[in-house]
Amino acid sequence: MSDLLNKMQWRYACKKMDPSKVVPQDKVDRIVEAARLAPTSSGLQPFEVIVVSNAAVRAQIQPKAYNQAQVTDGSHLLVFAAWDNYTAERINHMFDLTNAERGGTNEGWENYRKMLLANYPSRDAKVNFEHAARQAYIGLGASLIAAAFEEVDATPMEGFEPAAVDEILGLAARGLRSVAIVPLGYRAEGDWLVGLKKVRRPREQFVTEVK
Amino acid sequence: MSDLLNKMQWRYACKKMDPSKVVPQDKVDRIVEAARLAPTSSGLQPFEVIVVSNAAVRAQIQPKAYNQAQVTDGSHLLVFAAWDNYTAERINHMFDLTNAERGGTNEGWENYRKMLLANYPSRDAKVNFEHAARQAYIGLGASLIAAAFEEVDATPMEGFEPAAVDEILGLAARGLRSVAIVPLGYRAEGDWLVGLKKVRRPREQFVTEVK
Repeated sequence: MSDLLNKMQWRYACKKMDPSKVVPQDKVDRIVEAARLAPTSSGLQPFEVIVVSNAAVRAQIQPKAYNQAQVTDGSHLLVFAAWDNYTAERINHMFDLTNAERGGTNEGWENYRKMLLANYPSRDAKVNFEHAARQAYIGLGASLIAAAFEEVDATPMEGFEPAAVDEILGLAARGLRSVAIVPLGYRAEGDWLVGLKKVRRPREQFVTEVK
Repeated sequence: MSDLLNKMQWRYACKKMDPSKVVPQDKVDRIVEAARLAPTSSGLQPFEVIVVSNAAVRAQIQPKAYNQAQVTDGSHLLVFAAWDNYTAERINHMFDLTNAERGGTNEGWENYRKMLLANYPSRDAKVNFEHAARQAYIGLGASLIAAAFEEVDATPMEGFEPAAVDEILGLAARGLRSVAIVPLGYRAEGDWLVGLKKVRRPREQFVTEVK
């Protein structure tokens, strides 16, 4: 088994975190960096990550997340927030940044920009948001794997009220909508889930080979 | 930098694959295994992976994927296909499997099953599919990272006609809808993208800290 698969076996959705333990900043940084490096459609990175270490803000979020204890028992809360829409400004920003970083452009790349500009901003905002949300989940997965590499427990959660969290963090004004939250911390003794077997459908129910 | 971040820096969306090279089966298996181990909402794993090594089938898919060369120049094509809907049968299957694997159940877990059964199957199928597709993207991201660990090139693609690919692979009849395809192979000399800098928004445009 590869090192990656070992780390993925190690991780689990920690249900009880030790409130006395704090994840070191360099670990948090690498966990977020994995999301930043994650591949996304056309390289647009249509999401952001909000890192909430402030305990009062996490206490405000907790009742909007079914009072799940990890929100405050962990030391940090990652909020993955997708773009609410694709706009010409957002698309141009990424293409301009890419040109600046690579020191030039080419016709194929500029034609690709034009194609996105012609197609994305005119689509229904809901379609664009769903597309952006999928990309955010690539980043979410990358951060969960990164947490395992750091031996940090991370519990991905969809069980929260996105509009309320957006309000608390001022996300709507920035054109962002929260799609997943992830407390980071360390497992406490007595977590009912920690000793239980990780269950996945067997390979034959998950993979089809067309040879 | 951690080993994970190094691997993520190494990977890129390979544009030109060497058609003479074949990815060994054990590497393909570990790349798919990462998707199988990926965390998903409520552990439902609402997607499957189709591994197409058959060259004729990949040649059939290629024109439905804007003729992108990697579909046939690579040696394998992964098709990530999300559940078209959440059904009571699918939900019960995962809960029953979990109980069988863990050798028992408990009230909290069974209440959770009831909650999902009460809420998911009655929701609009489109909402359920979008939710499943997001989970598939966690698996997609895990496989892309796994490919990097195997030093295999992998090019995630949304540029294809899902309905046509579903038809070729008989997915609709199985309640599946393709959401992303990923050729696996090895970079060829002359790929225009390989030497170019990986561009991501700088940390300050991607991360907000709430301290």
